[in-house]
Parts: sequence; structure tokens; C-alpha cells
Amino acid sequence: MHVSQQTLKMAMVGGGTGSFIGPVHQLGAQLSGRIELVAGVFSSDPNRSLAAAAQYGVAPERCYRSHEEMFAVEARRDDGIDLVAIATPNHLHLPIALAAIEHGVHIISDKPATATLAEAVQLRDALRASDRAYALTFSYTAYPMVREARARVANGDIGRVRKVIVTYSQGWMASALERNGHPRAAWRTDPSRSGVGGCSADLGVHAFNLAEYLTHDVVTEMLCDVNPLVPDRALDDDCNVLLHFAKGGVGVLMASQVAFGERNGLSLQIYGDAGALHWSYDQPDALHLVKGGSREVLGPLSANLRVRVPLAPGIGNGLIAPFSVLYRDFASAIAGNRALLDGDLPGIEAGVRSMRFVETAVAASAARAGWTAL
Amino acid sequence: MHVSQQTLKMAMVGGGTGSFIGPVHQLGAQLSGRIELVAGVFSSDPNRSLAAAAQYGVAPERCYRSHEEMFAVEARRDDGIDLVAIATPNHLHLPIALAAIEHGVHIISDKPATATLAEAVQLRDALRASDRAYALTFSYTAYPMVREARARVANGDIGRVRKVIVTYSQGWMASALERNGHPRAAWRTDPSRSGVGGCSADLGVHAFNLAEYLTHDVVTEMLCDVNPLVPDRALDDDCNVLLHFAKGGVGVLMASQVAFGERNGLSLQIYGDAGALHWSYDQPDALHLVKGGSREVLGPLSANLRVRVPLAPGIGNGLIAPFSVLYRDFASAIAGNRALLDGDLPGIEAGVRSMRFVETAVAASAARAGWTAL
Amino acid sequence: MHVSQQTLKMAMVGGGTGSFIGPVHQLGAQLSGRIELVAGVFSSDPNRSLAAAAQYGVAPERCYRSHEEMFAVEARRDDGIDLVAIATPNHLHLPIALAAIEHGVHIISDKPATATLAEAVQLRDALRASDRAYALTFSYTAYPMVREARARVANGDIGRVRKVIVTYSQGWMASALERNGHPRAAWRTDPSRSGVGGCSADLGVHAFNLAEYLTHDVVTEMLCDVNPLVPDRALDDDCNVLLHFAKGGVGVLMASQVAFGERNGLSLQIYGDAGALHWSYDQPDALHLVKGGSREVLGPLSANLRVRVPLAPGIGNGLIAPFSVLYRDFASAIAGNRALLDGDLPGIEAGVRSMRFVETAVAASAARAGWTAL
Amino acid sequence: MHVSQQTLKMAMVGGGTGSFIGPVHQLGAQLSGRIELVAGVFSSDPNRSLAAAAQYGVAPERCYRSHEEMFAVEARRDDGIDLVAIATPNHLHLPIALAAIEHGVHIISDKPATATLAEAVQLRDALRASDRAYALTFSYTAYPMVREARARVANGDIGRVRKVIVTYSQGWMASALERNGHPRAAWRTDPSRSGVGGCSADLGVHAFNLAEYLTHDVVTEMLCDVNPLVPDRALDDDCNVLLHFAKGGVGVLMASQVAFGERNGLSLQIYGDAGALHWSYDQPDALHLVKGGSREVLGPLSANLRVRVPLAPGIGNGLIAPFSVLYRDFASAIAGNRALLDGDLPGIEAGVRSMRFVETAVAASAARAGWTAL
Repeated sequence: MHVSQQTLKMAMVGGGTGSFIGPVHQLGAQLSGRIELVAGVFSSDPNRSLAAAAQYGVAPERCYRSHEEMFAVEARRDDGIDLVAIATPNHLHLPIALAAIEHGVHIISDKPATATLAEAVQLRDALRASDRAYALTFSYTAYPMVREARARVANGDIGRVRKVIVTYSQGWMASALERNGHPRAAWRTDPSRSGVGGCSADLGVHAFNLAEYLTHDVVTEMLCDVNPLVPDRALDDDCNVLLHFAKGGVGVLMASQVAFGERNGLSLQIYGDAGALHWSYDQPDALHLVKGGSREVLGPLSANLRVRVPLAPGIGNGLIAPFSVLYRDFASAIAGNRALLDGDLPGIEAGVRSMRFVETAVAASAARAGWTAL
Repeated sequence: MHVSQQTLKMAMVGGGTGSFIGPVHQLGAQLSGRIELVAGVFSSDPNRSLAAAAQYGVAPERCYRSHEEMFAVEARRDDGIDLVAIATPNHLHLPIALAAIEHGVHIISDKPATATLAEAVQLRDALRASDRAYALTFSYTAYPMVREARARVANGDIGRVRKVIVTYSQGWMASALERNGHPRAAWRTDPSRSGVGGCSADLGVHAFNLAEYLTHDVVTEMLCDVNPLVPDRALDDDCNVLLHFAKGGVGVLMASQVAFGERNGLSLQIYGDAGALHWSYDQPDALHLVKGGSREVLGPLSANLRVRVPLAPGIGNGLIAPFSVLYRDFASAIAGNRALLDGDLPGIEAGVRSMRFVETAVAASAARAGWTAL
Repeated sequence: MHVSQQTLKMAMVGGGTGSFIGPVHQLGAQLSGRIELVAGVFSSDPNRSLAAAAQYGVAPERCYRSHEEMFAVEARRDDGIDLVAIATPNHLHLPIALAAIEHGVHIISDKPATATLAEAVQLRDALRASDRAYALTFSYTAYPMVREARARVANGDIGRVRKVIVTYSQGWMASALERNGHPRAAWRTDPSRSGVGGCSADLGVHAFNLAEYLTHDVVTEMLCDVNPLVPDRALDDDCNVLLHFAKGGVGVLMASQVAFGERNGLSLQIYGDAGALHWSYDQPDALHLVKGGSREVLGPLSANLRVRVPLAPGIGNGLIAPFSVLYRDFASAIAGNRALLDGDLPGIEAGVRSMRFVETAVAASAARAGWTAL
Repeated sequence: MHVSQQTLKMAMVGGGTGSFIGPVHQLGAQLSGRIELVAGVFSSDPNRSLAAAAQYGVAPERCYRSHEEMFAVEARRDDGIDLVAIATPNHLHLPIALAAIEHGVHIISDKPATATLAEAVQLRDALRASDRAYALTFSYTAYPMVREARARVANGDIGRVRKVIVTYSQGWMASALERNGHPRAAWRTDPSRSGVGGCSADLGVHAFNLAEYLTHDVVTEMLCDVNPLVPDRALDDDCNVLLHFAKGGVGVLMASQVAFGERNGLSLQIYGDAGALHWSYDQPDALHLVKGGSREVLGPLSANLRVRVPLAPGIGNGLIAPFSVLYRDFASAIAGNRALLDGDLPGIEAGVRSMRFVETAVAASAARAGWTAL
């Protein structure tokens, strides 16, 4: 593959055959025009990993048996990797990230940041002691109209934020698929691979991150009801939380994996004292701005937010276009614009806060607690 | 007006000029084919009351200056009233209802039942000591597809109920209209007329009643966040509550009067272990039944639920058709079918429970309490 | 019934038990605050007529056996009728209207104006020779947001009109119900009662009238494909027409009675050279105004269009509220404001044009004609 | 790039920087797992072509200055191209395709097949005289739910087809962008590059092809109104056609480039005598099946139609996933399953018919003709 010298070299860990998110990482990186996938450990099974490498156009000699081997060998190449994309189950996020830091490799990781809050804090400390860039693929933050909403709130278009409602519902785990060997259901419901949170860590973190991302505010305390609604499931699959924000607003966060009929039901309502913003994943290119009695459906982006990707807006390119935005931002952050991290592009602070959300919500719910500080 | 002898004679208290709900009561009663409006106290201002009487086709001599006068005079007529519709601000519900019972008049009342829980309990006791029928116009319970949903849950079509989400949002009070003399905003935000609850008593009671009505279950405990979001408002205008049900399900109840962009945003999701039901006021004639991966939009009613009103279903006749169902049911209850009360037709038990909801939610929220029994 | 002396007295012909539109006429008249139903011939079966009279609160002595009798007797009363509402099958519209004119009675008639174009022209001549007011209940013209759209086009908000798409689809006649004695399907498919048009006269006239009403323009020529799609049906049940307008715009008109899944699927798109307006019966209180890339959902009405009816906008009161607007306008027209007729309120010109549409479309289609002048 | 030996080698002509469809071709081919982009002429400007090659990962020595050079040089390589993707303006489709046939290269081409009907017939003759496979990227035919609809019609699930409505509206050309040098608007409105049809060739062919694809039927005659609605535009930008089908059904086809507010408004309604199917690009994963009064929203595909692409259904991956289906089918066709061509996968017959549609519609409209045979 022939690319310009400025192109960053990327490895991926995870994302092998059958993975949904692996190809999205590769295509997003490729569409960013600045990052190229050249190495990886795509599966713990070497043959499956090689098959995925072929599919991805990765040379077999750069398809490794472990991330340890990968980081070590790549570090010795002149054209070795600059960054790693982590697309594994949650419990592997920390060791891979620490190894990346050790080898001077930047990190872009699937959410949640780690399996536990303690791990997230450990990772933050390690990043602070290094100069490596770290991004979390909270993909919804890269939808153009979500960024528009974030900018509108900052501009005061809806006034002071009074209330936020974030709903993220899926229905595919409404039955106990994990007992029939469904691989993605299996790891999501297994504490040893998923950590302390089930739905709270899978979907709740997206919702929580968006609540803070859109309001430019932080949650200070919560009332939590987090449960497995499918009998005998080891981790929560339903998560309902009432929120208080530092600036005085309130919020409702609902996430569920057992919502029959919902494929990817993410919706956002932000109510201020001068208007409201509504966005839904169903119609991702439409942002509704309500002022007085009328409702405006925003089409074109504010000029300073216009994103340039090879895929036209309005044609519905799903996660690939947002991932290309994340990768383009991450390339800029690596190139020096570190202010993007935990600004428009979620970074390790978003990772720590979202893990704090998961652990607090799970613990407060188990303790049948009242308002619990975050 | 010429009507058959079986027609019940009704009075109305409240519902005068400028009232939204008054004409809905009259038209609903008329469309039921069994009840006729013949008397009333439509306003505390005698001239306004007379003007409304003329509009309603009520004879001026049966337009009274007070409900006390009305009950006394009507009791002496051969063709005196059989029932009274109460369409006043909340604080008047109890005295009017007690006077009605005293004079042997049946009662159909706007929600909430009374201004306080103590009053609701007092009214229940008075009703138990009498043989008068009492119905609450929780109008959404009379939408055909809401009744269909209630029947589907009872039939087990979605299995055991795991979760209920009820949202009821309006935006018209997002500004402090009460300070500009807006009459409907004024009484809704005035504790002396509205009672202890604002939004919780205005919209929250609908949502709470539907949560129990649809699940055939009762809420046992709640986590509550109930606040005025408009500064200096004396009563709550936003109400978020997490619910636990006796049979093990969970729930989320959201009601708001400050949701810019929502006119009458009522939606219901009921998730069971075998499917889900979705209904929204936006599309009241459609009930979505989700089973497995497919979604069925139910059109025709189950035969035993088919309601016969002179207005065709599917033409969108708003509250008038549901009110005609409430009135038709109430006429049946008066005629002897008392099992309808607090069965398909909400009665005083629904009134007591919903007032208990309001007082518990407001108090628990003020106390920053954890799970609070209902 | 006690009413002010200014109230106009109305009779109805048709609209008896089982009729959908009868109660809508009565309630709309009543809600207008200016018109009262006092007499009628509700059915050709005297017993059924009397039963309907009781339901409507019409005195049995003013429930007549024929419209001839009614006009004659009422003309001799001091408090005789001022206007008649015609709610019969189409073939009776003309004789009733002519009799009304003869007796000095104003006319408000269900569409289509008559069963044939010749009859419509005859009726127009008779009206011109009299001073009686005539209105056609093209009900969709009385929806607030349809009037708003009409005003917006007049104001130039979307520039010069380039294209109009009007769709009106229903599905209830997708099967040959008329062969099973379904009464409303039976007369709609019977040329002796419905005239030359089936769907074209039932739904097509609404669509055609709206196309002209909204654009303030007239159709000059058409390409027509009008057919019965249910085998052996005597009249068309599906009607597709391409339109050319006098001012240069084009249009597509689709009406169907055999569109499975549609209850009352009326939608309007008007495209100008500076924007577009979209309205749909599904969401009647929303008018979408598209300018550039954004879309505004219009809520509050322009001040000069605000209609005052006792039913709140946004609560979805179906046909009753629009009929109250028609009746209020008609009362104004009777009182002297004749400019409303064939202005905001469709009158006999709209009736003649829509009948010309029906006959032209049916004939051109049968002749397999090209562009046919209207 | 390392790939298995069975992978087919592809070139692309067109699709350079700024092209929307170029990356979709590449990603679709890559996701099919069977085809790899290795060569191309991406722009008539050599520097722009080289820049695109770098972006696509194509070696600079396989980035050619003309398609003639490309076919000649590639034919001499052991690992030369097997197929070519044509993504140029319409007038270049024929010469490139003929050159491909001459060099034994299979062809997958953007629609329309050619700039004129005569060219399409010429291409069909050339293909018949060769053994090369030819596919047209009518992308909507590769949406899973469109294929489901096609299968449902074949299975008789909605009975005999009575009526089809296909609407395809975009608004981005509502202004005369071509006069401001907008490149995509410029070639679409230029007869020398676009052929005789504007909107009819851009959007109308999609709509026409879907009408036949979904009904398993052919259009026999049409009434046509095809116009430029933007003044002084050289080609039509709005296209309305009434259809008659061989099996007796009727249809309405509407396509427009001047529909303010529409980004990609494609919708399909198919009405049979036993039910109906509705699909809309807005909600591409939902197919509505109406039977009697109920409506089913189909989720999971029929087992025999389930497509396996690395992107999960329901996540909204836009054109990339459908293109991967087209490429996967085309790889199968090349490998020997030629029955796919003009079966599930549109081929040269679809190309000839759609060009015949364009020329007939444009000519009949210009002639102000009546029913015109296709």
C-alpha cells in the first residue's frame, strides 16, 4: 500500500472475524486520510487472527500472536506503529494500553476505558506520566449534529440548561442469549471480562458521557436503580439513574439491553430556560431546536463545525463516518493539538468519569442508597 | 331538548368560558348517548356563568350561583340531576364531591381526586359510607389502544412485566406565565388552589395512574426527584421518579411542564419477558406490539374491547371520543355495573393512590430520601 | 334549549344513525357558538330518523319525512330554519339545495357539490339568481395549518410555486365491501347515488380543491389515469392525475380507496423557488417550512389567522374543530361577509371546479387521452 | 496488500477526490471480501488522479492517464485486473465499457447504463457477443429490506399487485447551482455529459428500476410530464410519470431534484389485492407489511435472503453495506452464477430498460403525448 510519509501507522488488537467494530475502526481510520492499519493481533486464535489480517490487507508477518510481541517487534521497525486501536473485551483494555504507553504508542480505545474505576485511574496516572495521546471512541460524540448540539449549548442558544434526558435502549439481550453461547452476549454478561457493569458499562457510559459532553457540565450526585432484569444474569442489563449537575440542572439517564423492539434507540433531549435541543439516532442528520412555539430542524452545520469526510452527510453512513471524525481528530491530537483531548474528542478524563459512573451506579443501587455523590 | 327517559341528568361545576375541559365534558356526555348536561355553576362570576350556560344550552334558571344552591334546588326537582361533573381547580374537588354525596348525586371528577392525600382518603371514606358512584376522568385510560394494551398485558401477550417507562411532557409552562396573569398557569402554580403538587399533580398523576393501570400492578417504592425548574415557582414543574412494583418490575416516570417543544408528549413503553408494547399520544390509534424481531402495529381492537362511539376511530377526535367512553362506562356503573369502577374505569382508589403518589414524591424529594415506600 | 336571539337555526338532511359526518356537523355548528341544529330529515326511514332526532336533541315535531315537507313547514314558523346542512349521498345534493334556495334557506353541503358537473353548474346558476350563501365542507381547508400554508404561499414565503403533490389515500375499500352490504361502500360505488366518480369524487375532489386552494392558482390541463382496481367495481377507486397550473407550476394528484394500511393518508407538499411547505394529516398541527437547508416546524399561527374555538389547538380534536371553523365562517358569510365564500371558505365555485375535475378526469382516462384542458 | 489468490482485481475509472461514490465502490468491494481495488484512472487530471490513488492505496504505477492505457497495460500483467468499476459521468460509460469487453474485463457500472438508449442497446449487443459479466449499481436493490419486499411479492404475500408508487426526491439542485460552478450540478445539467435526461436519468432510473424490480413485472405504457422547473436549465429536474404494467397494475413514479427539504427521499408503496408493502429510505431496516387492519414491521430477514456483511444490520451503514452486497453478488456472477444478472442483481437488461424509460419519458413529455408505449 502506498501512502504519504505523514500517514500514521496503526495496529489493532481485537476486531477479528465476526467483530462488528473492527472493520469500522479500519474504515474510519482509512477515511480520515491520515491513518493506516498495518499490524495487529486480531484474535487470540492465531489462525483466526491471520484470516482477519488477510481481510484487512495486513501483511501476515505483522499479524502477531500477542500484543506484547507486537509492541516489542514493531518498536524495532523503522516503519513501526504510531498508535494502537483497542477493540477487545473490557478486561484487556488496561494491560494493552499500559504496554502501548511503555512502547511510546498512542492509544485509541473502545469504551469503557477499562474494566474498573481503579484501572481507569491507574491508566490516567500512566498517561499523565507520559506524553502519549489517548482517545476513547465514544462514537456518538462524533456525529455532526451531536457536535452541533454541544456547540449550541455553549453558545447559549437554549439558555441555562435545566434538564437532560438521555435514553439508550437496545433489545437484543432481552433473552438470556449468553446461555446459548452467543459470544457477544457472553462476554458482556461475564464479570471477569466486562467488569462490574453490564448494561451500565455497555450503554450507560455512552449515555453518561453524552450527558456531560452536551451540557459542558458534570454530574455531582445520582439516584440509581441498576438491575439484571433477565433472571440469573450476573451483571445489570437495565440502568435507570436520576442526575444532578454542578450548575443546577437535573437529568434522567435510562439505558437498557432488554428493551424489545429497540435496535439502537439513542435519544437526547436538553431543555434550557430559553429553548430545547432534541436529537435521535433514528434521524442522526436532524437536530431539533425549539424556541418558543416553533421548532427548527437544523440541517447545515455551523461553519466552524463542518466536518469534511469523503462520505456525504445525509446519506446515512452509520458509524464509519463518525469513526473517521474520531480518527481525524485523533491524528490532529497526535500531531500536537492536545486540547482536542477531553474537549471535542473524549479522552482519559471521560474514561475515568464514565467508569466512576458505572461503579457508583452499581454500588449505590446494590446498597439501596439515596443521593450518592459522584 | 328531547331525550329518552333513561337519560341521566348532569350538572357541571366549573368549565366556563375559556375552559378547555368544560366543552369536552359536555360533548363526551352527549356522545355517550346516555347523559345530558342540564345544570351547572360554570364560573364564580354569575355573568360569566350565565354566558357559559347559554353556550352549553343550559336553561338560565338552572345556572346557579354556588354548588350548595345547585344541589339544594336540584334535589327538589322531579327531573333533578343524577350526577355532577367536577371541572374546577383542585382545592374545590373535595367540598363539591362531599356535597354531591350528601344530596345523593353521583360524581365524575377531573383529576387529581383532591388537593391532598388526606382529602382523598376522606372522600373515599365518604363514598364507602354511601352508595354513590365515583369516577375520575383519567382520560388516557379511555383511549381504545390504551385499553387494548391493558388487555394484552392481562392476557400475557408480553409475558411478565419487567419495566415500564411513562413519559408525560408539556412545554407551555416553561416560562413563568403565572407572573403575567395567565389563569391556567396561575392556579396550577398556587399551592392554595393546586395542593402540594404542581406538575406531579397535573401530569404526574396521569403517568402514575397509567403505570398501574397498564400493568395491573401497584408501585411499592420510589426514588424521587421533584423540583420547580422555573426559578421562584412555588410548586414543582418537573417530576422524575424511579419505581419498583409489587410483582418485581421496575419503572421510570417522567413528567414535565417545562419541556420546550412538547405539546402533549405522553408515551408508554411496557417491556415484558416475552415482548413489549409501545403507545404514544402522537399516534393514538396505533399500538405497537413487539415480539422477537418483528413489530406489529395493532389496528383493529380486540372484539371485546371495541368501543362504539359515533366518531370513527382513526379520524383523531382527541379527548371528546375518550370522554364519551368514560361517560358511557360511568352510566353503566351508575346503572349497576359497579365492577367497572377501579376496573377499566378509574375510581376513588385510583384517586387515593395517585394523591399518595403526589404527596410521597414531593415529600421524599424534599427530604432527599432514598427508596420510599408508597 | 336556550340560546341567544342571534343564533342561526339549522336543519340537517342525512346524517342519521350510523353516519360518521352527521354528529360532526352538529358539534361543529354548536362549537361555532352561532348555529344550532333544530330540525332535520335524518333518514329516509321515519323511525330511524326519529331515533337520530332524539340523539341530536331535535324535537320530534321538527323531524320530517322529506326535505320538501321540511322546507315547507319550516318556512311557516317564526323560528324556522335559516340554513340547511346537506349530509346525504351525492345524488340528493342538487334537489335539496334547489329546494333550499327556493325557500330562502342558506346551504352548507358535504362535498362533492353535486353528482355531476351539469348539476353543479345548474346549482351555481340558481345561487347567482338568489342571494343565498353556499359553502362546501371541504374540511381540510379549515385546519389551522392548512390555512397557514395558504397564507404563506400568498405572502411569497416559498416564492413562485413550482410543484404541488397532493396525496389522499384510504384503504378501507381495498376489498369489495359493497358486495357484502356495507352501506357506505355501497353508495360510494353506485353510479346512481355517487355520480360519475368514485374515488375521484370521494377523495380526489378534496385533493384537487386543496391543490388550488393552497396555490391560489387554477389547474389548466391534466393527464389522467382513473380506474377501478377492485375487479367489477362500477366506479373508480384509484385516481392518479398529473397537473399543469395557469401560473406555470406542475402537480401530481393521487387519491386511492384501495391503499391497504392507510386510514386517512392526506399529505401536501408545495415546492416553490424559494422554499417548500409540507403538511400531513398525521400531524395536523405541524406545518413544515423549508428554506435553504433548514426546516422549521411552525407552531403558533400567524396572528391574523388565529382561530378561536373552544377546543385547544394541539390536542387533536379531529374534524370537529375544523367543522366549527367552517360553521363560524359560514355564519359570518350569512351575516354579510360574502367575500369569505370561495375565499377562505370553499363555495360553489370550488364545487363547480371540483366537479369539472371529476368529470374531466374520468372522461379523459376512459378515452386514454393526452393532456386535457380543464 | 496481501490477499488470497481467489480475490478478484479491480480497477476504477472516475471516483477521484471529491467524488462521493468512489470511496463507496472501494469500501463495498473490500467488504465483499472477494474484490480488491488495485488500479485506476481516478481523474482526467493526472495529479488529482495520483492523489486519489494514494488515498485508495493504489500503487502509482497502476494509476493511469487514460482507460485505454489502463486496459492495455493491465492486460499484459500476470496479476492484471479482472473487473472495472465505472464511476464517471454518463457519457463515458459506453466507451469504457466497450474497451473493457474488448480486453476481457468484467464491468460494474454506475447508473444510468449509458448516456442514450442507442448506446445501451449497443452495449447489450457487445455483451451478448462476449462472455463478460455486467452489473449496474442500482444500489437500492441491495438494501436487505428491498430484497425482502421483492421476495414477498414473488411469494404472493400481498396478492396480485394493483398499484405501485415510487417517489425519489432530492432538494439540493433546487437552485441553479450549475451556474456557480458546482461540479456535480454542472455535469448533471449538461446534455453533453449527462445525456438526454437530467433528473429522469439521475433519480428517475432508480425509481423506474425499483418499480419493475419489486413487482417482477414490466411497464408497458406511460403518461409523462418531465420538465426543468429551474428556469433555463438544459435538462429536466422534475419527472412525473403514470405507469401501466403488463400484468394489469398501475403506478405513479415521481422524481425530483428541486424538492426543498428532501435529502434523499426515496419511498416505495406496493399495493396488492391482499395487502401492501411500504418501505422508505428514512428507515431502511423497516419493511411494513399491511394485511387487513394491522401492520407488521418486518425485522429479521427471511432466512434465504439473509445477507452476511461485516457490518451489522440496524446500525445504518448507508451505501457501503449495499455496495458490498452488489460486489459480493457480482463476484458470484463472475464466478459462474450468471443467473444473478438481471435477477437479484440488475444487469444490462435493467440498463436498457431504464434508458428506454428516460428517452421515452423525455420524448413523450416534449411531444405532449398521451399514453406512450415503452
